[in-house]
Amino acid sequence: MDKDNLTVVLHSKGDLRLEQRPIPEPGPNEVLLQMHSVGICGSDVHYWQNGRIGDFVVKQPMVLGHEASGRVVKVGSAVTHLKAGDRVAVEPGVPREVDEFFKSGHYNLSPSIFFCATPPDDGNLCRYYKHSANFCYKLPDNVTYEEGALIEPLSVGIHACRRAGVTLGSSVFVCGAGPIGLVSLLVAKAMGASQVIISDLSSDRLAKAKEMGADFLLHVKKEDEPKEMAKKVEGMLGCMPQISIECSGVQSSIQTAIYATRSGGVVVLVGLGAEMTTIPLLNAAVREVDIRGVFRYCNTWPVAISMLASKKVDVKPLVTHRFSLEQAVEAFETTRQGLGVKMCICGRTAALGTLW
Amino acid sequence: MDKDNLTVVLHSKGDLRLEQRPIPEPGPNEVLLQMHSVGICGSDVHYWQNGRIGDFVVKQPMVLGHEASGRVVKVGSAVTHLKAGDRVAVEPGVPREVDEFFKSGHYNLSPSIFFCATPPDDGNLCRYYKHSANFCYKLPDNVTYEEGALIEPLSVGIHACRRAGVTLGSSVFVCGAGPIGLVSLLVAKAMGASQVIISDLSSDRLAKAKEMGADFLLHVKKEDEPKEMAKKVEGMLGCMPQISIECSGVQSSIQTAIYATRSGGVVVLVGLGAEMTTIPLLNAAVREVDIRGVFRYCNTWPVAISMLASKKVDVKPLVTHRFSLEQAVEAFETTRQGLGVKMCICGRTAALGTLW
Amino acid sequence: MDKDNLTVVLHSKGDLRLEQRPIPEPGPNEVLLQMHSVGICGSDVHYWQNGRIGDFVVKQPMVLGHEASGRVVKVGSAVTHLKAGDRVAVEPGVPREVDEFFKSGHYNLSPSIFFCATPPDDGNLCRYYKHSANFCYKLPDNVTYEEGALIEPLSVGIHACRRAGVTLGSSVFVCGAGPIGLVSLLVAKAMGASQVIISDLSSDRLAKAKEMGADFLLHVKKEDEPKEMAKKVEGMLGCMPQISIECSGVQSSIQTAIYATRSGGVVVLVGLGAEMTTIPLLNAAVREVDIRGVFRYCNTWPVAISMLASKKVDVKPLVTHRFSLEQAVEAFETTRQGLGVKMCICGRTAALGTLW
Amino acid sequence: MDKDNLTVVLHSKGDLRLEQRPIPEPGPNEVLLQMHSVGICGSDVHYWQNGRIGDFVVKQPMVLGHEASGRVVKVGSAVTHLKAGDRVAVEPGVPREVDEFFKSGHYNLSPSIFFCATPPDDGNLCRYYKHSANFCYKLPDNVTYEEGALIEPLSVGIHACRRAGVTLGSSVFVCGAGPIGLVSLLVAKAMGASQVIISDLSSDRLAKAKEMGADFLLHVKKEDEPKEMAKKVEGMLGCMPQISIECSGVQSSIQTAIYATRSGGVVVLVGLGAEMTTIPLLNAAVREVDIRGVFRYCNTWPVAISMLASKKVDVKPLVTHRFSLEQAVEAFETTRQGLGVKMCICGRTAALGTLW
Repeated sequence: MDKDNLTVVLHSKGDLRLEQRPIPEPGPNEVLLQMHSVGICGSDVHYWQNGRIGDFVVKQPMVLGHEASGRVVKVGSAVTHLKAGDRVAVEPGVPREVDEFFKSGHYNLSPSIFFCATPPDDGNLCRYYKHSANFCYKLPDNVTYEEGALIEPLSVGIHACRRAGVTLGSSVFVCGAGPIGLVSLLVAKAMGASQVIISDLSSDRLAKAKEMGADFLLHVKKEDEPKEMAKKVEGMLGCMPQISIECSGVQSSIQTAIYATRSGGVVVLVGLGAEMTTIPLLNAAVREVDIRGVFRYCNTWPVAISMLASKKVDVKPLVTHRFSLEQAVEAFETTRQGLGVKMCICGRTAALGTLW
Repeated sequence: MDKDNLTVVLHSKGDLRLEQRPIPEPGPNEVLLQMHSVGICGSDVHYWQNGRIGDFVVKQPMVLGHEASGRVVKVGSAVTHLKAGDRVAVEPGVPREVDEFFKSGHYNLSPSIFFCATPPDDGNLCRYYKHSANFCYKLPDNVTYEEGALIEPLSVGIHACRRAGVTLGSSVFVCGAGPIGLVSLLVAKAMGASQVIISDLSSDRLAKAKEMGADFLLHVKKEDEPKEMAKKVEGMLGCMPQISIECSGVQSSIQTAIYATRSGGVVVLVGLGAEMTTIPLLNAAVREVDIRGVFRYCNTWPVAISMLASKKVDVKPLVTHRFSLEQAVEAFETTRQGLGVKMCICGRTAALGTLW
Repeated sequence: MDKDNLTVVLHSKGDLRLEQRPIPEPGPNEVLLQMHSVGICGSDVHYWQNGRIGDFVVKQPMVLGHEASGRVVKVGSAVTHLKAGDRVAVEPGVPREVDEFFKSGHYNLSPSIFFCATPPDDGNLCRYYKHSANFCYKLPDNVTYEEGALIEPLSVGIHACRRAGVTLGSSVFVCGAGPIGLVSLLVAKAMGASQVIISDLSSDRLAKAKEMGADFLLHVKKEDEPKEMAKKVEGMLGCMPQISIECSGVQSSIQTAIYATRSGGVVVLVGLGAEMTTIPLLNAAVREVDIRGVFRYCNTWPVAISMLASKKVDVKPLVTHRFSLEQAVEAFETTRQGLGVKMCICGRTAALGTLW
Repeated sequence: MDKDNLTVVLHSKGDLRLEQRPIPEPGPNEVLLQMHSVGICGSDVHYWQNGRIGDFVVKQPMVLGHEASGRVVKVGSAVTHLKAGDRVAVEPGVPREVDEFFKSGHYNLSPSIFFCATPPDDGNLCRYYKHSANFCYKLPDNVTYEEGALIEPLSVGIHACRRAGVTLGSSVFVCGAGPIGLVSLLVAKAMGASQVIISDLSSDRLAKAKEMGADFLLHVKKEDEPKEMAKKVEGMLGCMPQISIECSGVQSSIQTAIYATRSGGVVVLVGLGAEMTTIPLLNAAVREVDIRGVFRYCNTWPVAISMLASKKVDVKPLVTHRFSLEQAVEAFETTRQGLGVKMCICGRTAALGTLW
C-alpha cells in the first residue's frame, strides 16, 4: 500500500491546507477505505469561511468532506459483510451510543452521534479513511463512485420528502433551486409527485431545475411579498400545493411556503436560517399546515442505492465541476463563488483510474 | 309544543340581547332539538366584546352558543337513526360540501363548513334549535346533558392530543390551565400519558389542574425567560417532554414549548395568538420538533361519548357556575371576568326538570 | 336531446340484453351524463356468468358497467362545480349515509354505499346515466374519455399500493398479471418502487407486464410449491420484497406471497378467493408480515387525474379491444374468453365523435 | 463477592437441573447482575416439556429464564450510564448486528438477535448473569424488582396494543385470559380503551380478568361456532370492536376474532398456533380488517417503567406464586399444571433480603 494520504484540513477560519496524515488502522468493526469521490457541501465552505455553524465551532484542525465513496482496502476483525475490493458509499453519521433515538430508528437525532466534518469529528476528504463498516454500503456495479458520493445530498432530499409525506399525485412547492432544492425535486418526482414548482432568485438555477424535471419555475425577487408569491404558486399549479419544501432558510421564503401550502398540508424546513424567525404561525395553525424540520437523514442509503441502480433517479447532472484532490483549494474557491451546482473531488488521478 | 324560543343574540359588538325567535322547522335531514345545556366558550365572549375573531366579523345579528346538548322533539323525513325523545349532544360543525377534505376524513378543514356561532352562522343558545341529524349523537342513559354539552370543549382536547400523538408513557407539557388546558390534561392522561406538567400565570388555575390530575405545576410569570422555563420543565419531569400542548397563544409560551420539547417530539398549537409570531424555528427544525396546529376537531363525538359512558374521563369538575337561560347575560359577564372555569346554561328551568 | 338510451341489462344469470330505457332526470345534487367510454370489468362478466358474487345476488334486472366517463348534459339545481359540457370521470361508489366510515375518510367501507352494477344498484353501460355530482370529476383537456374510464381500475391499484405503503425504493412482488396486477405494477412504479417482479400462469400476460414496466417476470405453474416460488422471488430480486400485492385470489399464490415477503413487510390481498383460506399464518405473525385486504378504493380519482394529466402514468396500453355500445354482447364474450387485457365500450359511434 | 451461582439449566427435553456455574465476567459494554426476580414464562415450560418451539430446538444445555430484574454488581469498561448498586430490569433481546431492522427501529425483527432462553442463547434464571448494558434499564425507587421482572410480559402487551393501534375510546376484544391476555387488557385500558371484553374457556381466568379491569367476560366452549361468538361479542359491547387481540393461538378463536372485528379494524395475533391455519380471509379482506402479528417487542422498557412509576398500570396482581431459586423445579411444575397466573422466582432468599 502506498503511504500517500494527502488530506484537506481546515486549521481555523480561512486556513485550509493540504497535508499528509498517517494512514489510519481500522478497529474491529471498521473498514479502511481508499477514497474515490468526495463532493463539496455548502457546510464545508461555510466552516472554511466562518469557522463555525451555529454551536459547532472549529477549535482544532479538522478534515473536511462528508459526501464520499471509496474502495475497501482493509476490514476490521469483526466485519463480515464487506471485504477488500468492495466499492462502497459512506454514510457520514455514525451513532456512538445505543440510546432511545437509535433504538427507535431515529439515530440522526442521537446527540452524541459522530458526523464527518462536523467539529470535532474529521471528514473524509483524503486518500485513506477509516469508517464504521455498518455505515458503509456496497455499490452495485452499475452505480459509479461519483453517484455513490452523491447519495449524501440525495439523502437530504429523501429524508425531506419522507418527512413531507410526498406520495402519488402530490403537488409540491420547492423553495430554492440550489443542490438541496434540486435533489428534493428529483426525489419528489420519484415518489410520485404529479407536479413540482420551484422558486429561486437566479434564472440560471431555475434553468437547471427545468432541465432536471421541474414542471413550473417561479422567479422571485428579494422584495417580493410572501402572500403575493403564494398566490402565484397557486395560480401556476392550478391548486395550492399539499407540500412545500423550504431549502433557502430565508424568512420571507418560509413565510411564502406557509401561505402557499394547502390546509392539512406540510411545510418542511431544510434550509437553515436565523435563530429566531417571524412567521404567520396563526395562519399555519388554523389551517393545520404542519411545520417540520429535518436534521440530516437516517435509513436513506439502501433506498438511494436501489433508486440509482434501477435508474429511477439520475443525479449525474448535479455535478458541474470535477477536480483532483491536489486541486482541492481551487474546488473550494469555485464553490464559494457559487459557480455551478456541485463540485466533486476525485481522490484518484487519471493515471490510477485503470486500477478501479 | 310551547311557543317560547328565548334566544341569546349578539347584534353587534357589545350588544347582547335575549329575544324571542320563531321555532324553526327541521329539513329532511335535520332534527329539531329542545336545548338543555349550553356551555359558554371564550370565543362567545370574544365576539361579544370585540365583534370579531380574526377574519370572522359579526355583521348581522347572530345567535351565540356552540357547546350544547338537547332532546330531539321532531325529526326530518329522511332521518332514521334518531327519534323524538332521544337525548343528544350537538357537534356544531357541519360540512356543507362533500369536498376533498370531507371525503378524506378532515371535514373540519372544509372551507365552507357551517359552524354554530361563527359569523354568519347562528349558534344554539336558545330553547329550540334545528341541526343536521348526522351531527347529533345519542347520549347513553349514564351520560348527563351537561356532560353532553362539555363534549365540545373535550373534543378540542381530543383533537389536540391526537394531533400530538399522545400515547402510552408520553410525558406531556400543557401550557395554560384554562378550560382547554384542562381538557388537554384530562385527555392526555386518558390516552396513557405517564406524566403531565401544566403551566399558568394563575395559582388558582394551577390548583384546579392539580385537582384534575396534573402531576406537576409550573407557575410562570410574564417576564420569565423561555429557555429558563424549558429547563425547569425538564428538571421537574426528569426528562424533556415528547409533547407540548400550547393553549395560551402567547408568544413567549410558544417559545418555551419549542425549547422544552424533546428532539423528535411535537408542539401542538391550540391557543390562538397574533397573526405573526417570532419563534426559535431553527431550534425546532434541527431537532425535528414538529409544530402542528389544530382547527377545531373532527370525529371526536363518538369517542368522547364512549369515554364518558365508561367513566374513563370526568369532565364534571370543569363546570363551576350554572345559570338559567334567562340569566344568560350574567353568565357572559361572569365568564368575561375570568371567574371559575366553565359556565353552563341550562335551557330548562328546575320546574321543567321532571319532564326529562 | 335524443331519446335513444340503449342500455346493457343483465336480467338474470346468462341473460344479457340490450334494451331501451327512459333517460333519467337528475336530482338536485346529481348530473345527467351522456356516457362516452365504459370498460368491462371481470365482475361484470362474473355476474353475467354466475348471477352472483358472494352475497351479492342478481335478483332483478340490473344495468352493468362501472368503469366510466362521459359528458355532462344537465345539472341538478344544487350543483355548482359542474356544468353542461364538462367531460367527467365517474366514481361508481357513492355513500348513502354520513356514517362513521364516511366521516373518517373511509367511505368505501360504509355498508349502505351505492355502487354501480352491484346488485341491486344499476351501472352505467348505457347512453344516458345520472350520478351524484360529488362523485363526478372533471377531466382536463389532455386526458381522454378512455383514460377517464380507466381511472376505475387504476383506482384499485392506487388503493392497493397505498394500503401496501409502497414508497421510494420499495421492492414489490405482484402476483397475477391481469388488469389489476398491471395497474398495481403501474402505480407501484409511479410511487417510487425500485423493482417490481410479477408472476402469472400465462406467458402472454407476462409479456404484457414486461411491456408495461415489470423488472422481473416469474412464470408459475399450478403445481408449484409456494416456498419454492418464494425462494425464486428472492433470488430474482436479490432480496425479499417488502411488499406483495396478491391479485389472483388463489390459495397457493397467497401462501407464496406470505413466504416471499420480508419481515416487517406487507401482503395486500386484492384478488378475491374462497371464503375460507389455509395460510401460513404463524410464519406471517412471527415475522410481523401484515396481511391487509382492500375493498374497492376511496379518494383516488383526483390523484389519478393528476397522474394522467402529468403523463406520469400511462394506462392506454391496458385497452386491447374497443367496441361500440351496440356490440356490447360481443365485448362481453371476448372478455369471458380471456382475450386481451381490457375491453372498452365507446358509447358514441364514430359518426358522433366530432361532436365531442 | 460470593461464589454461589446456582443456575436453572435445561439439559434436554424433560431434563431440568439446578447446578453451579462460574460467575461470568462482563465485557466492555456489559454489566454483571446479581439477579433478584425472574418470572417463569410459558415458553420456558414449553422448552422443558417439548425440547423445542417450532424451529428453535434445545440441542445443548441452556439456562432458562428471560423475565428478569437484578442489581448491578460490576460494570464493563465502556459503560457510563449504569454503576454498581443500580437496580435494573433486563430486556432479554439484544441485537447482534446493526442491520436494516435495527437501524429502522425494529430490532426485534433482526434475525441474528440474542435472546435469553431461546436456543442456543442462555437465560438468566441464576444468581449472577451478565448482559448488554444498553439493554438494562434503571428502575426508579418506587418500582420493585418484581415489577421490574414483569416488564417483560407487560412488554408483550404494549407491543401488541401498539401494533393494534389501541387509542382513546377503542373497543377491544381480547381472546384468552392467560398472562398475555391479562397484560393486553391492562395496557389497552391504559392506552384509552373505553371497553374491553375478554374471552376464555376457564371461569377462574375470567374472574381474574374481571378483577384486573375487564368490562365484559365471554365464557367460551371448545365447540362454540366462531360466527356465533362474534355476534355475542357485538351484543355485549353494543358495537363491533375495532380491535381484537388474539392470545390463544387456537384456530377457532382466530376465526372468531376476524368475524368479530369492525370493518377497517385490526386483529393482532399474539398467541402462536399451528404452522398452517384456516381462516375467513375473504371476510377480513373485503372489510379491510388487517391481520398483524407480533414478534416479541421493541422500545417498550422505558415506557413500561414510566407507567409503573406513575402507578398507571398495576402488574402486581399477576403474580400468584413466589418461590426461591432453590425451589425452581417446583415453580416449573406449578406453572405446567396451569395453577395461578404467573410464577416468580426470587433469586435472593429471605435471609438475604435485608441486603437489598
